[in-house]
Amino acid sequence: MKKIIIASSSSVYGSGYLEYLLPTLKSFFKEVNTILFVPYARASGKTYDEYTNLAKEAFSKINKNVEGIHLFKKPKEAIKNAEAIFVGGGNTFELVNQLYINDVVTCLKEVVENGTPYLGTSAGSNICGVTMMNTNDMPIVYPPSFKTLQFIPFNINAHYLDADVSSKHMGETRETRIKEFHVFNDTPVMGLREGSWLEVNGDKIELKGNNNTFCWFEKGKEPIEKSSCR
Amino acid sequence: MKKIIIASSSSVYGSGYLEYLLPTLKSFFKEVNTILFVPYARASGKTYDEYTNLAKEAFSKINKNVEGIHLFKKPKEAIKNAEAIFVGGGNTFELVNQLYINDVVTCLKEVVENGTPYLGTSAGSNICGVTMMNTNDMPIVYPPSFKTLQFIPFNINAHYLDADVSSKHMGETRETRIKEFHVFNDTPVMGLREGSWLEVNGDKIELKGNNNTFCWFEKGKEPIEKSSCR
Repeated sequence: MKKIIIASSSSVYGSGYLEYLLPTLKSFFKEVNTILFVPYARASGKTYDEYTNLAKEAFSKINKNVEGIHLFKKPKEAIKNAEAIFVGGGNTFELVNQLYINDVVTCLKEVVENGTPYLGTSAGSNICGVTMMNTNDMPIVYPPSFKTLQFIPFNINAHYLDADVSSKHMGETRETRIKEFHVFNDTPVMGLREGSWLEVNGDKIELKGNNNTFCWFEKGKEPIEKSSCR
Repeated sequence: MKKIIIASSSSVYGSGYLEYLLPTLKSFFKEVNTILFVPYARASGKTYDEYTNLAKEAFSKINKNVEGIHLFKKPKEAIKNAEAIFVGGGNTFELVNQLYINDVVTCLKEVVENGTPYLGTSAGSNICGVTMMNTNDMPIVYPPSFKTLQFIPFNINAHYLDADVSSKHMGETRETRIKEFHVFNDTPVMGLREGSWLEVNGDKIELKGNNNTFCWFEKGKEPIEKSSCR
């Protein structure tokens, strides 16, 4: 049975890396000793080692070990043997690119669907959807496909931001961008605000965290606030 | 000789479509009667007709005709025969996708390099660079390539926004995103603020508009404010 946490962001304002999630992660990973970390998204351009150390430090607070996938000669084997997997945030294009380059897309999908606990934050959450087409990231590399892991039957827009009505900026709002997506695509999109996460248990998907609702976009409809995925 | 205007945005806050640019466009297009409009980026999901009508209305104020490229059976011929070309903003992924689907990338590059006046705004400006890899847009479609027209030897980040130091949002700033780009790419990037545009005459590139500087990013260096491309 799938066991997944899909978090909008790795941090909330004013607190450390993963800090707001640690009580949840302690219980989510309670039967796990070592978590396989996938640093491919390279947040802020960090090296894989630097990024893995950041995850190590955070998880040491709940007495979990962390191993970076980049240290394994056979990343596919590392995924197959993992007790649990954490895919961190950064750039979604580079993350997806590396998942394809390392040929782990199918394998990652299989193990998680068979029950290996999975934590995603930001870019690591975007890839839980049908495609990565609702990322906010810059297309700094050209991945072989935008198709992602499809753990859930919709797409995620992480770090979802409501339009700032006082803004004088003429760039598109997040809402406009997602509406443009629905000119060309049918997949529903969940705008998940910072401090929110989804807990997936099999087919059950629940909203958790410090927002009572998410913003839900369907093709041809006005976006609505929802609190439940049913 | 190349004659190009590369504008960060089609509008500035509080004024109508293209309004702030009209005095410049009157002189830029002074020997032109009819402008070929490329509505492929479909700003805000508009139809090609709706978007073309918006451009028509704006250009009627300086007595220019506008024809939408989508009304021509052979878009390549339309480009070859155009007196001048305007590529409007919207979604850069869809714009680039349609330029490839309609097989007009090479042809558009050739006529503009041979002197057909070109106006780009926003997405239409992003494609003047080496690649579209510094767009702010959402990847709502998967184009066959991120390579663009290379009228200038750098990339454009349109609607450039300085980091808001008071923000509590944990998503990446524009600066962070461009720095991540330079982890993987060498092409310099110009952050062009709203209300700014570049005038390109042959190899001469000048900053115009209501900002005295742009933000200039090179691999391995801190970004700097510059007023000149030399």
